[in-house]
Amino acid sequence: MRTTTDFDVIVAGGGLIGLVTAWRAARLGLRVAVAAPHTPGEASGVAAGMLTPATEATFGEEALMRFGLLSRDRYPEFVAELRADSGHDVGYRTEGTLQVAFDTDDLARLTELMELQARLGIQTRRLTGRECRRLEPMLAPSVRGGLLAPDDHSVDPRRLTAALRAAAERHGAALVDARVEEVAVSAERVRGVLLDDGRRLEADQVVLAAGTWTSRIGGLPEGVVPPLRPVKGQLLRLRTPSGEEPIVTRTVRGLVRGTPVYLVPRVDGEVVLGATQEEMGHDTRLTVGGVWEVLRDARELVPGVTELEIAETCVGLRPGSPDNEPLLGPTRVPGLHLAVGHFRHGVLFTPATGDAMAEALTTGELPDYARRFAATRFSHASATV
Amino acid sequence: MRTTTDFDVIVAGGGLIGLVTAWRAARLGLRVAVAAPHTPGEASGVAAGMLTPATEATFGEEALMRFGLLSRDRYPEFVAELRADSGHDVGYRTEGTLQVAFDTDDLARLTELMELQARLGIQTRRLTGRECRRLEPMLAPSVRGGLLAPDDHSVDPRRLTAALRAAAERHGAALVDARVEEVAVSAERVRGVLLDDGRRLEADQVVLAAGTWTSRIGGLPEGVVPPLRPVKGQLLRLRTPSGEEPIVTRTVRGLVRGTPVYLVPRVDGEVVLGATQEEMGHDTRLTVGGVWEVLRDARELVPGVTELEIAETCVGLRPGSPDNEPLLGPTRVPGLHLAVGHFRHGVLFTPATGDAMAEALTTGELPDYARRFAATRFSHASATV
Repeated sequence: MRTTTDFDVIVAGGGLIGLVTAWRAARLGLRVAVAAPHTPGEASGVAAGMLTPATEATFGEEALMRFGLLSRDRYPEFVAELRADSGHDVGYRTEGTLQVAFDTDDLARLTELMELQARLGIQTRRLTGRECRRLEPMLAPSVRGGLLAPDDHSVDPRRLTAALRAAAERHGAALVDARVEEVAVSAERVRGVLLDDGRRLEADQVVLAAGTWTSRIGGLPEGVVPPLRPVKGQLLRLRTPSGEEPIVTRTVRGLVRGTPVYLVPRVDGEVVLGATQEEMGHDTRLTVGGVWEVLRDARELVPGVTELEIAETCVGLRPGSPDNEPLLGPTRVPGLHLAVGHFRHGVLFTPATGDAMAEALTTGELPDYARRFAATRFSHASATV
Repeated sequence: MRTTTDFDVIVAGGGLIGLVTAWRAARLGLRVAVAAPHTPGEASGVAAGMLTPATEATFGEEALMRFGLLSRDRYPEFVAELRADSGHDVGYRTEGTLQVAFDTDDLARLTELMELQARLGIQTRRLTGRECRRLEPMLAPSVRGGLLAPDDHSVDPRRLTAALRAAAERHGAALVDARVEEVAVSAERVRGVLLDDGRRLEADQVVLAAGTWTSRIGGLPEGVVPPLRPVKGQLLRLRTPSGEEPIVTRTVRGLVRGTPVYLVPRVDGEVVLGATQEEMGHDTRLTVGGVWEVLRDARELVPGVTELEIAETCVGLRPGSPDNEPLLGPTRVPGLHLAVGHFRHGVLFTPATGDAMAEALTTGELPDYARRFAATRFSHASATV
């Protein structure tokens, strides 16, 4: 069968999740193609790149956090392998993350977060407002307290995307500059894809990894792709005036009167400032309200941000599944896999999802640590192809 | 002498002031060239386009206001002539301007403004907060009061620029896509210009109308061009979602806790929102502080602005003279004229400055109404060429 098809695997989608799947599969010897327009991903091209499962821990999302911790712990080796395969530096920064609280209510929520972190076995350190300012002198005097998560790091998602493209190509993956319009299914299994430029590519397996765009791919029986909703994020890329000290030296996350805001510094002086969370459908408009909200909270937290240049404004669409958890691995259509629904955690989950998908593509099954996220978990009701 | 030169007049600068000078001079039969890189003006390409001498009246600036009123009154005929010569619609809107006050202190300043307007003989109408909201229903409930200036209108400066280019060309003006680097002066009079592409153009008269850039033009005796300082303005161009009502139906200017803010609506649904006034030298960086300040005050005044899309962010440099008034007409170098220093009023002053400059270029003297703004008024101390 293998020799009759163009590829072993076609990945639809060229964001981080599609590319890491392609790279890890190609590394195992599979003949891989990635089909995606060569434009930034809806989410990957915009994401800030926080690798912060400890400071993002949320009650009721413990399983997601455990997957995040596992993926975070793979990052150092992942970055090293990626550098070896691509020659790229991905801007991995390991200074930890400072989470701070602005008022008394925010401080109470921080205390709850620390209880949850303790329950998950995560090491963080409680800090007074003064201790926070000692770490980050530009923080507002009004910051009431915080915690340091020494293992919550960051990476530059745009560099990561470029590195994954190079690494996948290095291992023989074909990067096809076209969008998958339809999956070809016949005799109850996947046969390949139809591209928007009219070409057909044959493959034994197809992975849908196109974020919220995945819902628009045709040719599939109902229910195979659960509903994916875009969760809009507006953020800003700031620039430190040349010759000036960076405004923060590590990722700073804040709760400001209940609203989360973050600043993620890069080595080159860029600071990513975000982000809104809006459920607006497929809407990528930059709005007065979105920009204003982000600037307001950032100013409260780090007043000196006022002096920074706005180098770029960005709008991304995070792909949310019905339960906000990823959809990974085989579907009920033989040969068809999903790798979508990474919501706010796509950058963090990139190493773990890449490994899980490579295993699913070679063995037909997800590894234990990813089984909870099986792509079939919503399809029991209508389980006929 | 006329036959030995390439042109009667070379205008350095392709913003509104340079172009209107060229058009009005060409209309009188002069052979004109405009030398400017074909890029938007530092100020003209960014300006909101308010024609609002009544609502901008300021104690101590009465002469400037009288010039503004005179220029405003020429606008209807100016727009009609420009349309006839260019075929362009310049987005002239005649719904008047609503000036509103946000708190009690702002209201007190509005009362002072009305006293000044009365002294200048300007007709405006005092309004209660409720009357303001009847005119503009999207205004915040907290607006305390206002005034309606029925003759303060607006125009679209980008359309105006395009129309002036077309009209000048129609009358035979040459548009030269290069920057004037140096003025050629010999035997105590102007001879022409040297362009940044190496070309030399000869002319009997040269007009410097390049905004703050004018200070960088070489070849001139000291003091001929008084210091021009750039006054930075940051503003936003917003877009009304299609199918929705415009957020304001006329220019709305507000004082919000002492800070001025304005919204200028266009027929196509664009709303220009501005603007900061910053003395930062030749700095065109968009900053967090600038954008935040404008958004904050606009939200206070018209909360619904939150829903609008940010279509464009702009930074302009207004050219300010030592006394904040324009510098017009002949200098002490025979044949050399200035048309600079229009500061915040360039769009408003365009018709009056155009006529004054055309008269200076044909008769050698400014008309009475512009004589106060003579370009030589700062050069008494060093009056040797």
